[in-house]
Amino acid sequence: MKMYVCGHINPDSDSICAAISLAYLKTQLGDEAIPAKQGEINPETKFILDKFGFDEPILKTSYKDENLYIVDYSDLAQAPKDIKDANIIGIVDHHKLGDITTTTPLEGWLRPVGCSNTIIKDMFDYYKVEIPKDLAGIMLCAILSDTVIYKSPTCTKEDIKATEELAKIAGVKDIKALGMEMFLVKSAVKGATPRELITRDYKDFDMSGKKVGIGQLEVVDLSVFDDMIDDLFKDMKALKEEGKRHTVLLLLTDIINEGSKLLVVSDDKETIEKAFGCKLENSMAYLPGVLSRKKQVVPYLEKVFATI
Amino acid sequence: MKMYVCGHINPDSDSICAAISLAYLKTQLGDEAIPAKQGEINPETKFILDKFGFDEPILKTSYKDENLYIVDYSDLAQAPKDIKDANIIGIVDHHKLGDITTTTPLEGWLRPVGCSNTIIKDMFDYYKVEIPKDLAGIMLCAILSDTVIYKSPTCTKEDIKATEELAKIAGVKDIKALGMEMFLVKSAVKGATPRELITRDYKDFDMSGKKVGIGQLEVVDLSVFDDMIDDLFKDMKALKEEGKRHTVLLLLTDIINEGSKLLVVSDDKETIEKAFGCKLENSMAYLPGVLSRKKQVVPYLEKVFATI
Repeated sequence: MKMYVCGHINPDSDSICAAISLAYLKTQLGDEAIPAKQGEINPETKFILDKFGFDEPILKTSYKDENLYIVDYSDLAQAPKDIKDANIIGIVDHHKLGDITTTTPLEGWLRPVGCSNTIIKDMFDYYKVEIPKDLAGIMLCAILSDTVIYKSPTCTKEDIKATEELAKIAGVKDIKALGMEMFLVKSAVKGATPRELITRDYKDFDMSGKKVGIGQLEVVDLSVFDDMIDDLFKDMKALKEEGKRHTVLLLLTDIINEGSKLLVVSDDKETIEKAFGCKLENSMAYLPGVLSRKKQVVPYLEKVFATI
Repeated sequence: MKMYVCGHINPDSDSICAAISLAYLKTQLGDEAIPAKQGEINPETKFILDKFGFDEPILKTSYKDENLYIVDYSDLAQAPKDIKDANIIGIVDHHKLGDITTTTPLEGWLRPVGCSNTIIKDMFDYYKVEIPKDLAGIMLCAILSDTVIYKSPTCTKEDIKATEELAKIAGVKDIKALGMEMFLVKSAVKGATPRELITRDYKDFDMSGKKVGIGQLEVVDLSVFDDMIDDLFKDMKALKEEGKRHTVLLLLTDIINEGSKLLVVSDDKETIEKAFGCKLENSMAYLPGVLSRKKQVVPYLEKVFATI
């Protein structure tokens, strides 16, 4: 079967590497599977692909009448616009179950783990397909990215086990050093426009009918943002207006000290304060220990948005 | 973790047997898993449980603040009313992906196969847990029921392989004879009220905002219904009014001659005719080759309902 394998909009490293790794697996299993992306890759992902010698997936944003295997999401807000006209044949995801529905039965590999590539590693084992050395390298990097080198509360023992096995295959001796090398690339924010930074790892959520956008930037040192806070706020306001959003949040995450500075532009700041039990000052708050948008941010927002 | 494993409303044999088999597997893996049902079991399921010596799962229709693993469905119309307040920890399903969403990541085993128990058989193999003899018996029967003894177009080679392996474990030598024995029990319609028959294997679907109920009765000889067509129609009309449904359909399926007599009560019969390319006479049509509600009925209805 000819199919595309594609992750979410504003692709992160997991979305891109999962498209490549799952397309490889499906091809080995006899399908014609083509990795695709819905948007341009970020500097971290470029570093990963360059390091292990992979081309970028093709850019494809329309999937009418195509067979599509989606990876790393299951909600419409992150899907191609014409996904209703696509034939969704499968989903690999590690997030909450979203609002995508299908008209025919499908394959689904959902797991409460830290990264889609951890699930795909398991699929390789399930189907007894060998993982090539370079592919193991990008899968490993995707897991280190999503789990913030094991620091994120989303990280599970399955993720750690997968990275250890993938590192062996990829010939990577110091896993954490590779992770830090990658996060240093990620921390380079100079030269990027505020919009590029806000949307680099950005997702829109439907929270009880309200559109809430949440961006996240993970860096090794929060001081890189010192001179750009005002510009970031200005562009968050613009982004809010453009998309008729209720709220736009930006998490500036310090992966060394393990916490996030939260920037808030919202029609209802009190609700945001309630969600995190914090007091905003100048529309900002520091949230100690918060590293994971998925596990430490989205569920709390959804809970309070359900009550307003 | 304490959890309930429960299938859809109006439980069929797969829903009940999957609750039992998955709860057993989860218990072996260290959880406290309790099989449950949302409604009373049908005569076929009773035959299966009696034959292999199982008690019925407990009746439980409310899951507020409980951990819930759902089996054999993924749409809200078939869920407990308070599922939004439950903690859905997993889904095993072989249907189209429905509109259930979650607020946290979950486990999901979705496969385009003929029966949930085929997936659960695979889960036992994945986790390397042995299937007890009697449990293999009810899992085997569930697959034979869902695939209409391999005749349904939903039946895949995975289903056949699973039945062969389960039959070996259960000590069943003639698989098809066991299937026929089961379908003879299923064909016994005498003494049942029209409502019992219509809802015995019945599901409500949301089709582009319209509520469509579809019941199905699989028998070895359609003549058993000869004297009750008028009574069935009368009660279908009542059911339509009670639930403010747009349409109520009943499929009387002849598993020997492989076809279904379709009974239609609808606000818009032309749309139903369009869906199946048939002409209704006295609100009925014979659909040759149609055995599967999931594969040969629901998708065609969804397609035309999306256009009205």
